[in-house]
Amino acid sequence: MFEAKIDANVLRESIETITAVVDEGKLRITEEGLKLRAVDPANVAMVSFELQRDAFDDYRFERESKSESKSESEVEAAGDTPEALEAIEVGIDFVKLLGILGIGGREEVNLRLDGRAQKLFTRMGSLAYTISLLDTASLRKEPKVPELEFPVQVIIEIEEFRRTVRAAERIGDHIVLGVDGEEFYMAVEGEMDKLRLTLRKEQLIHLTPGTLHSLYSLDYIAAMSKGMSRADNITLNLGKDYPLQIDFEVADGKGKVSYLLAPRIESE
Amino acid sequence: MFEAKIDANVLRESIETITAVVDEGKLRITEEGLKLRAVDPANVAMVSFELQRDAFDDYRFERESKSESKSESEVEAAGDTPEALEAIEVGIDFVKLLGILGIGGREEVNLRLDGRAQKLFTRMGSLAYTISLLDTASLRKEPKVPELEFPVQVIIEIEEFRRTVRAAERIGDHIVLGVDGEEFYMAVEGEMDKLRLTLRKEQLIHLTPGTLHSLYSLDYIAAMSKGMSRADNITLNLGKDYPLQIDFEVADGKGKVSYLLAPRIESE
Amino acid sequence: MFEAKIDANVLRESIETITAVVDEGKLRITEEGLKLRAVDPANVAMVSFELQRDAFDDYRFERESKSESKSESEVEAAGDTPEALEAIEVGIDFVKLLGILGIGGREEVNLRLDGRAQKLFTRMGSLAYTISLLDTASLRKEPKVPELEFPVQVIIEIEEFRRTVRAAERIGDHIVLGVDGEEFYMAVEGEMDKLRLTLRKEQLIHLTPGTLHSLYSLDYIAAMSKGMSRADNITLNLGKDYPLQIDFEVADGKGKVSYLLAPRIESE
Repeated sequence: MFEAKIDANVLRESIETITAVVDEGKLRITEEGLKLRAVDPANVAMVSFELQRDAFDDYRFERESKSESKSESEVEAAGDTPEALEAIEVGIDFVKLLGILGIGGREEVNLRLDGRAQKLFTRMGSLAYTISLLDTASLRKEPKVPELEFPVQVIIEIEEFRRTVRAAERIGDHIVLGVDGEEFYMAVEGEMDKLRLTLRKEQLIHLTPGTLHSLYSLDYIAAMSKGMSRADNITLNLGKDYPLQIDFEVADGKGKVSYLLAPRIESE
Repeated sequence: MFEAKIDANVLRESIETITAVVDEGKLRITEEGLKLRAVDPANVAMVSFELQRDAFDDYRFERESKSESKSESEVEAAGDTPEALEAIEVGIDFVKLLGILGIGGREEVNLRLDGRAQKLFTRMGSLAYTISLLDTASLRKEPKVPELEFPVQVIIEIEEFRRTVRAAERIGDHIVLGVDGEEFYMAVEGEMDKLRLTLRKEQLIHLTPGTLHSLYSLDYIAAMSKGMSRADNITLNLGKDYPLQIDFEVADGKGKVSYLLAPRIESE
Repeated sequence: MFEAKIDANVLRESIETITAVVDEGKLRITEEGLKLRAVDPANVAMVSFELQRDAFDDYRFERESKSESKSESEVEAAGDTPEALEAIEVGIDFVKLLGILGIGGREEVNLRLDGRAQKLFTRMGSLAYTISLLDTASLRKEPKVPELEFPVQVIIEIEEFRRTVRAAERIGDHIVLGVDGEEFYMAVEGEMDKLRLTLRKEQLIHLTPGTLHSLYSLDYIAAMSKGMSRADNITLNLGKDYPLQIDFEVADGKGKVSYLLAPRIESE
C-alpha cells in the first residue's frame, strides 16, 4: 500500500530530472521514499534518483504480503528475501505522467498505488488521473552503478553551466569538461568556431585542482542540463577520459539526483 | 446602412467565439444588433451568436431599400416580406478579419458596411482595412435550431472546464460529460490511462441532479473551449446520449453565444 | 590591432540591423569606428551600417603594417595607398555571431581581432567565443551607393510602421509607400482585401508634402522592420517609382543605419 501527498511543483521538478534521461522506468517505493535508477536506451547515460519521504506532505507505505501484490513479482524473482519485499517496484511512463501534471496548477497532488490492479491514481483537486503501470518485466533491468573514483570535483552554479551548454549547442556536437590547475573549463570546437568557458577556483563554489579532461556528447549534456534546471548548484565529478557524474538536489534538499554519462573517445 | 464603433477587445472576443466552429458565415445585421448561426463543415457543431447593439460604443443601422442593396438578395429569396428587409445579411471570412484585428492594439474599431460594393470597412486608429464580403449565396444555409429539451443543466467555471479539456486531449479522442446524482463529471479513457473530473454540487454554480451522460468528440470540445476562453462561467445543457449545448456570455453580458454539439455513439 | 569593449545589448542591436539584410559581410574597422555596406544576395536591398567608437566602452585600434596582416590583402588590392591601410577589413558571419551573443546576459562583450590568425575573439564574462573570419576575397564586393535624390522625407514612429507591416503581411506580397498632399500612406492590396495606413502631417514627426508613391516587396520591408525594431523613429526617403531609403539610429545615436530598397514595377 502506497499513498502520498506532495506539492505539484516538487513532483514535476522531480519527474523532469528523470525524463531528461529516460521516458519510463521502474520506480522503487520503500518506507524511506522513492528511488529509481535507469539507463538510457543507448546505454550512454544513467540517472539515479532518490526522493525522501519527508519531501512529501503525507506519506504512507505498508509492506504488502506476497500473495496480495503482483507488483512484487520482480522483486521476488530478484532474491525472494524478506528484505526484498520491503519495496514495491512499479513501471511508470514518466513522460505521460509529466504531461498531465504539467496542466495542473500549483496545488497538491495525491498519489495512490493499486498494486493489484497495476494502477497509479493521481489526483489534483477535482481532477483524477489513472495511469496503468508498465509491466516491470518488460522494462530494462535496473543498472548496476559502476564503481568509479573521481579525482576532481567541481561545484558550479547551474546558470553558468546551462548558458554555456546552450551556446555550445550552436557550435558543435561534443563538449570537453576539464580542469587545468586551478581552473575549470568547458570547451567546444566547431568547424569554424570555438567556445570556451573558463572559471577560476574563486569563481566556483568548489574546485579540486588538477589537470585532466574528458569529452562528452552535447546532446546528453543538454538534456541533463534541462533536467537539472531547477537546482541551484551542481557538482561535477570528473576524471581523465572518464565518465562524468553530476550530482544535485531537488525538493529543497529532500531529494538527490545523479547523472552518469559515458565519455566519448577523442579523435585526433 | 450599417456603421458602428466597438472596443477592439470586445470585437476580437466575439469573433473568436465564431471561429471556434466556422471560418466564415452569414452575419445578420439588424436594428437590435448582430446575429449569426452557422454549422461546421462536418455538420457536427453549431454556433449561435448574438451581440446586442449596446455592446457597441456607437451603432447606426438603417433599412436599405430593395433596389439599393445587393446584399439583401438572400433575405428576399428567403421570403420577400417587408420584415425580412429589416436585416442585412453579409458573408464574412471571420478568420481573416480576426487575423487583422489581432495585430491592432486595444483601441476602438470602426466598422462600416458598403452593401452595394460588398465591402466591410474596418478602421483601427490610422489603419484602414477593407474586406470583401463573401457571396452569401455561396455560403451554407443558416441551420435550423433543432428543438431540444435538456433534462440537466450544469453551470461551471470556465477554468476548471478548460484545464480538464487540455489534460483530456493528452489521453484520448472522446470525452464523456455526465451527472451522477449530485455530481458532474467529465471523463476520458485512453488505451492505458483514464482521466476524470468530478465536481460536487457545492463546487459548481448550479447543478440539476440526475443520472445521465453523453460522449462527445474532444476535437470539437477543445475548439469550443478556446472559443469561450474569455467567459467566466459556462452553462452545460446535457441529456442522455443527447446533443450538448453550451451557453455563455460575451461583451460583459451584452452578447450571448450557444454551441451545440452532436453526441458520438459509444462503442461498447 | 583592434580591441574593444561594448555593452552586449548595443552590440546585439547593431548586428540585428545587419542580419536583417545579409547573413555575412565585410566589416571595416577604422580609428573612427566600425562600418559596413552590403547588398543582399538578390541585389534588391542594401544596408549601410556605422558604429562610432564612442558607442564602445573601450576602443583600441592600431594600424598594422602590411607585412603583418593578412586581413588587409583586400584593402591593398583595392588601391594599395597608405590611406587604405588605415582600415582593417574582416569577413564576418553575423548570423552565427548573433546566435552566440543572444545567449549571453546583459553584460559587456570584449572583442579582439587577430588579423594574422584570421580570428575574432569575443568574451562575455567567463565565456570566450572564437569565430574564424571569412575570407574577404570570397565575399561580395562592397557595393557603390547609388546617387539618389529623394524629393520626400517622412519621419514616423517605428511602432506605427511595424504594426502596419505585420498586418500587411497577412494580405499581400507588396506594399505601396507614398505621400498624398500632407498625408503619408502605406497600402497593400490582396485578392479580396485592402489595408491602408494613413497618417496626416500632424501625426508624423516630419513630412515633406508631395504626391508620389512607389511599390516595394513586403518580404524585404518586413525583414528591415525587424532589423530596426529597437529604434524609436525612422526616416523614410521616398520618390516616385524610386528606391526607398530608411535611416535610423542605433546605440543611443552613436550608430547610424541606412537601408536601401529597390522599387518593384507596378503591374496594371
